[in-house]
Formats: sequence, structure tokens, C-alpha cells
Amino acid sequence: MSRVSYQFDDETALEQVGEHRWRTHLVADWNIGVNPNGGYLLAPLQRAMGQASGHPDPLSVTTHYLRPGSAGPAEIEVEVVRTGRTIGTVRGRLIQDGKTRLESLGAFSDLANPVSVATVSIDPVDLPPPEECVSRAALAQGVEIPLLNRVEVRVHPDHADAQGGRSPEISGWIRFSDGRPVDAAALSLFADAFPPPLFALLGRIGWVPTIELTVQFRRQPVEGWIRGHFATTDVAGTKTIEDAMLWDESGTLVAQARQCSLILQDGTP
Amino acid sequence: MSRVSYQFDDETALEQVGEHRWRTHLVADWNIGVNPNGGYLLAPLQRAMGQASGHPDPLSVTTHYLRPGSAGPAEIEVEVVRTGRTIGTVRGRLIQDGKTRLESLGAFSDLANPVSVATVSIDPVDLPPPEECVSRAALAQGVEIPLLNRVEVRVHPDHADAQGGRSPEISGWIRFSDGRPVDAAALSLFADAFPPPLFALLGRIGWVPTIELTVQFRRQPVEGWIRGHFATTDVAGTKTIEDAMLWDESGTLVAQARQCSLILQDGTP
Repeated sequence: MSRVSYQFDDETALEQVGEHRWRTHLVADWNIGVNPNGGYLLAPLQRAMGQASGHPDPLSVTTHYLRPGSAGPAEIEVEVVRTGRTIGTVRGRLIQDGKTRLESLGAFSDLANPVSVATVSIDPVDLPPPEECVSRAALAQGVEIPLLNRVEVRVHPDHADAQGGRSPEISGWIRFSDGRPVDAAALSLFADAFPPPLFALLGRIGWVPTIELTVQFRRQPVEGWIRGHFATTDVAGTKTIEDAMLWDESGTLVAQARQCSLILQDGTP
Repeated sequence: MSRVSYQFDDETALEQVGEHRWRTHLVADWNIGVNPNGGYLLAPLQRAMGQASGHPDPLSVTTHYLRPGSAGPAEIEVEVVRTGRTIGTVRGRLIQDGKTRLESLGAFSDLANPVSVATVSIDPVDLPPPEECVSRAALAQGVEIPLLNRVEVRVHPDHADAQGGRSPEISGWIRFSDGRPVDAAALSLFADAFPPPLFALLGRIGWVPTIELTVQFRRQPVEGWIRGHFATTDVAGTKTIEDAMLWDESGTLVAQARQCSLILQDGTP
């Protein structure tokens, strides 16, 4: 029997080179256009931070995207800010060619067996089944998206154009193409793998790079598709706020995310 | 003519003691019970980070609350992660008695004159005028709140009890008691100065300390009251997510915030 190997694990694998230092080798297969997806860059960093935290699961991870990453070798440095009984807090960064690309600050904890004092959550967004949704690969984007060979993204048919004029929101299904189960690193990837919901309002106006992304991890997902809803809630000048909610196939909320992004209209450097 | 001096400025004043090091002296007048309000602890740290950033306004500031702070001297250390043309990114921490209390990571920018490519925002929550709302000071809390001598908090009459059994949300008005104008440091304070909305559902079950708070600064407020809406959107085990939205008196969204908190029921250490 051969051991199952998944692309996401192979292509974000960590090599520990010091107490709190790791190396990884990024590939171009998770790109959107010429840049690696932000969640893909985050995956090895988040995993290294988790290892240093002394706790099994991420709880809240904030990442600032300082410069675009690229395929090739990367170094990861982590500092433990505090290891508590319930929460471990760590800082970390992903460095390429001597320059910090991502700077993160996160709290780690244990998400297993969450017996709650109250039943408060967010109901899953209403979506047709995946087979009635539209592959993101089929949508005219004007940009090459190698990422879509790694993850399957199925967009709500009502959100499946980028002509603009609609409410700035998008919903759909997402999973790994090779059947890899979904864990916390995958949720960070999935929180940033749909088209910017602002395109639903404005059409494909340019590039909307993430300045800061915070992912809140709520529960461990069951096997299957992840259901996502993404909405731009505020635009002030060139800075937008986008909220993401992710549910597992049973309809349980597994993560929330919010990002602050910059609108770079085509032609703007 | 005497110069106007405000309590919030006097009681969060910074003394620079190195290139990226400051001292401040915290007072107990901003306490909720025996602990200083989290936004009060953040105010001098956020201001120091802003000074180091090379940009006039905070854009997105994430703070992890590692240990409670207390009245008395505090040291602030800041590291500049990156100074860009549009965004400056800095790390910072507030230290008391040699122990880090708050660890922050923030992006700073310029919020002036935000000419937007699209009109997308969040409408203000519906609220009776401040004079028809209920002073938080008048609500039975079972805990002393010196903070309420520093800020006026007026709660929506429909949210003005802590018996539980309602939807976990609260809305109301807030301003400084001494008429100080509202700036970004004040918005961080106001984002965490209302009762936990979970009390509306469960009654006053204990203490809900913040693990992590991210404030997104959207626009500079006009003079007057700030209108706030606070909702607990998810409870998983002992960890909650609470969303806050703040509008100025003209109804313009000025900040959004999200925090991950821990439910410590009475009797739990």
C-alpha cells in the first residue's frame, strides 16, 4: 500500500533548520496571474507558527502582506510571544531573497470538543449543490489562474459573471482537486481563493491585493466541500474591507475571515 | 486663554525614551472592575506605533491581550516592519513589570480625502436619539465601572438590561465625558467600551476577556456622538467572536472591529 501524498502538503512542506526557523520551497502552481495566492504563502508560515505555539490549532491569525511572494525558496522565522495554558501567541514571518513578504501574529489553542455555553453561530449561505454551480475556471477572468488546477471552485450561478452591476458579494463551493482533507491551513487558503467580490459590482477593475488578513478558526471541518460567502462591506478611497465566512459540508461555520485590501486599478503600479 | 486639556490625552500621554521606545503612566480611571479597559491600554501603544510608522492614520491594528494591565507605569517598544509609500507596517508591545501585556501588529496609512471608486458601506444601525437611550451607568452590572466617569455610554432602551434571553447584540451612543473630539485612538477605546453583547443572551455570566482585537479604521469622524452596534456572531466552546461597527454622528461608518474573546464564567480563574 502506498502512502497518500497530497499536492498542498508536498508544496508547502517545512524543513526545520533551527529552533524557530524553517525553510520551504514555494511553487508557481498556486498562482493567480504571476503571484502566488496569499493563502498559499500563508500555509507554511501558519503551520510553523502552530508548531512553535505548543497548541494544536490556530484560533486567530493576522497576516500583513508586505510584498508579493514568488515561486522559489523561502525562510520562515517564528518568535513565541507567550505560551499559556489555554492560548499560545506567536509572531512569524516569511522571507524571500532577504525581504519579509508576510508578517503574522497569531493565537493558537485547541478547537476540539467545543462544548458551548450557548448556541450562537451563523447559518450557512443558501447555495445550489456544487454540480449546479459554475466552475471558476470557466469564468472569463483575463488572467491565468494555475491555482484552479489545485483547487476546484464552483461559483453560485447568480454570481458567475464579472460584468459588474451586482451587489459586491460572491458565494460558492471549494475543495482540493486531489481530495486532500480540509484543515486549518486549507481554510486560510480557501478564505482567499475566490474572485474579489468587488468585481461583482465594478467588473474586473484591476488587482485587489491584500494588505491585512485575519482568519478566525472556529471548528474543525467534516470531510467534503467547503461552502463560502464573500462580501465587500466597505470601500473608502482605495481601501476595501472584505468579509468571508466558511462552512463545512454539514453547514457548520468553520472559519470567518476579514481582509483589508488595496484597489490597484489596471495601469496603476 | 488657557489651553484645553483632555483626560484621555493626559492619561495616555507618551514620553519618548529611545528611538522606538516610550513610557506612559496608566491610571485606574478607565477600569472596568479591577482591570483597565482594553481600548484604554491600546491607546498609547497605537499612538506610539503610528509615530513610528511614518503615516498619519492607523488603517488596521490587531492586538493580542496576553495578560491584564494595571494602573501604573508602562513601557512601549515598537519595531518598524516596513515603511512603504502607501502603507507603513509596525509591531509594538506594552510592557508592565517586565511582562508583555499587549502585542500588536498594525498597518498605517492616510485616511484623508478618500475619493472612492465605488459607494459601498454599511448603513448606520437604527437608534433612538441619545436622550432617549439609557446610561450604561444606570444599568445593574454588579461590577464597578470607573470608565463610565470618563465616557458617556447610552444604550438602546431595548438592550438596556442584562437579564438575558435576547439576541446577543447591543447598540448605543458613546462620547467622551469632557467633550474630547474623537480620533483613531478613541475609536479603539469605543470599540471595546460597551457591555459584552453575549450578556444580552446569557445574562451577566462572568468575564469575557479579549484574546485578540482587530480594528479597521475607515474614515475620520465628524464631531459629536459615535453610534455603535455590537453583536456576538459565533460561540464555539469558550471562544466567542464579536463584531463591532462604529458610525459618526453624520451616519458615516468610521470603524469596524472584530474580537475573539474567552468566556470565563464566574468562579473560573
